[in-house]
Amino acid sequence: MKRVYNFSAGPAILPEAVLQEAASEMLDYQGTGMSVMEMSHRSKVFIQIIEEAEKDLRKLIGIPDNYKVLFLQGGATTQFSMVPMNLMKHKKADFIITGNWAQKAYEEASKYGQANVIASSEDKMFSYIPNLKDLPISEDADYVHIVENNTIYGTRFYELPDTKGKTLVSDASSCFLSEPIDITKYGLIFAGAQKNVGPAGTVIVIIREDLITKDYPEYTPIMLRYDIQAENKSMYNTPPTYGIYLCGKVFKWLLNLGGLEAIQKINIEKANILYDYLDQSKMFFGTVEKKSRSLMNVTFKSTSPELDDKFIKEAKANGFDNLKGYRTVGGMRASIYNAMPIEGIKALVSFMDKFEKENLG
Amino acid sequence: MKRVYNFSAGPAILPEAVLQEAASEMLDYQGTGMSVMEMSHRSKVFIQIIEEAEKDLRKLIGIPDNYKVLFLQGGATTQFSMVPMNLMKHKKADFIITGNWAQKAYEEASKYGQANVIASSEDKMFSYIPNLKDLPISEDADYVHIVENNTIYGTRFYELPDTKGKTLVSDASSCFLSEPIDITKYGLIFAGAQKNVGPAGTVIVIIREDLITKDYPEYTPIMLRYDIQAENKSMYNTPPTYGIYLCGKVFKWLLNLGGLEAIQKINIEKANILYDYLDQSKMFFGTVEKKSRSLMNVTFKSTSPELDDKFIKEAKANGFDNLKGYRTVGGMRASIYNAMPIEGIKALVSFMDKFEKENLG
Repeated sequence: MKRVYNFSAGPAILPEAVLQEAASEMLDYQGTGMSVMEMSHRSKVFIQIIEEAEKDLRKLIGIPDNYKVLFLQGGATTQFSMVPMNLMKHKKADFIITGNWAQKAYEEASKYGQANVIASSEDKMFSYIPNLKDLPISEDADYVHIVENNTIYGTRFYELPDTKGKTLVSDASSCFLSEPIDITKYGLIFAGAQKNVGPAGTVIVIIREDLITKDYPEYTPIMLRYDIQAENKSMYNTPPTYGIYLCGKVFKWLLNLGGLEAIQKINIEKANILYDYLDQSKMFFGTVEKKSRSLMNVTFKSTSPELDDKFIKEAKANGFDNLKGYRTVGGMRASIYNAMPIEGIKALVSFMDKFEKENLG
Repeated sequence: MKRVYNFSAGPAILPEAVLQEAASEMLDYQGTGMSVMEMSHRSKVFIQIIEEAEKDLRKLIGIPDNYKVLFLQGGATTQFSMVPMNLMKHKKADFIITGNWAQKAYEEASKYGQANVIASSEDKMFSYIPNLKDLPISEDADYVHIVENNTIYGTRFYELPDTKGKTLVSDASSCFLSEPIDITKYGLIFAGAQKNVGPAGTVIVIIREDLITKDYPEYTPIMLRYDIQAENKSMYNTPPTYGIYLCGKVFKWLLNLGGLEAIQKINIEKANILYDYLDQSKMFFGTVEKKSRSLMNVTFKSTSPELDDKFIKEAKANGFDNLKGYRTVGGMRASIYNAMPIEGIKALVSFMDKFEKENLG
């Protein structure tokens, strides 16, 4: 068995220790004589798994008691519908457009009320986070929606927008658990698990209790009601049990590492190694504004698309996989989530440096 | 490692060979250097996995080209909303109520149009399948909805209702792939994977192409549109990749066994062993009408609730797990899905016989 350095943007690399544990428990979870995926979600053993996962997540982030934690299905894209269906009481929401996912969330919300673009970085191919000072927040906006880290373009919010008292909704799919956050600044955070937390098929929602009401359109599908999901502790129907079990293992892995402060330190160190190299390279350069650079998705290009292709191909042959940039962006993208070890970054930079020396004309 | 005989109604037992393969591939899928759950859903390797899963499923069932196969999220409960949203063109659908899931589907459909109960077995605690001759099908019904196997009560349809030309929609969650079916009799079949096919979090939908239209209410969430899911081959967003991979392995396991004819033969043999024992027992008895007996979920009781409890407890201590009946039904339920080996049934019957002899007053 040989593991590659996997820079996939998602589904993405998971901690090797977590996968090893999962493999060893596949046929018999802790003496139960069955796999976690073979257990009733109502069984004592599984209820302990989901409750422990929630407890560990609360501990990791520091989630106050007036926030609910939900483990749902349908990915972040289902949240694009679920959020407006449940939160748009005045049928109005404001969006900061920093990439494809913000745009899709905005389009979906437009089905359910008036969605307003209050800032956008589309003018420069989403290569920066717009100025967040004195945004034209709608007076009766039910919430302001942001995508906190932009997987495709490689940007991130370093500060949260001043919502002028309105509820902040954050799609944190690609930066969730990468650093400490103050949950009280948010009304709702959602994150697809498949970037930093677990396998695809689980989406984590953290929602302030007062936002969970029975005031939603009659047509709201029962599975897309936060009240139903909260009252049933994410088990109105069978939840994605195996995914939740793996998320729980990742939470424990993070706690053992020292929590979000510890992983933030590592993530900054990892990103700095890569950005520092890019900033001095004569062949490779970062594609986004320096002050908006993501710590999770590092986008860069070389001097030509042909050279990009050559680099991606040779990198793959040398054990650095999934470095190709998003199809509409081109170039390269190194997604360096929590589970990417610092050795992977050092090895990549060393390979890039070698490639540069060999190919600089 | 010791495996128990797991009679859970779902999530449920999976073939041991499938779990062993999954465990062995957990850290490195076929030399890729990564787990299937760490792969981009757009990668060549994963696209091959999902395409092969679909191909194998088509081969197993014999699915004609004019039917689409979708691997979705949200469980059967999400289909309770998705089906009426997409199929209720005349805002009318007929329901045969044979248990809780049919009732829930009916209630959910009532949000989107007129849902009619055209037959029900509620009068006798859902212990039988209603007479299917000359049902009062609504003249402009968009479809007739059935639950083909009733997990909770232990009944099943042995023939399909005459829908008088209307589209048949079947919730086949707990009997999917347990026997051959003629797909052309159905407009749409859906099945949560967690009974007979794979882990919770994947729901399989087989839908006739002409039912996939762009005629749905404007409020339909984008993830709940069959057109979007079909056009994007179940990958409008990240699908539950690991679940699909496991479903694919179960399809191959079934093909290797000899397909649905072969597993049907085994399933009939398994159920007969258990029902034959029940029919001669002086302590245990089946709880549903003989001609409606499920081959997947065998419900039974003993002479008293106290004895039921004693039996369940002693059975568990002897390696027969999850035999407790559904809370509103009481008694026992042995779910004997495809993956339950015939040895498990024989061992259970032998244990029941011993228990009977020891406890018959």
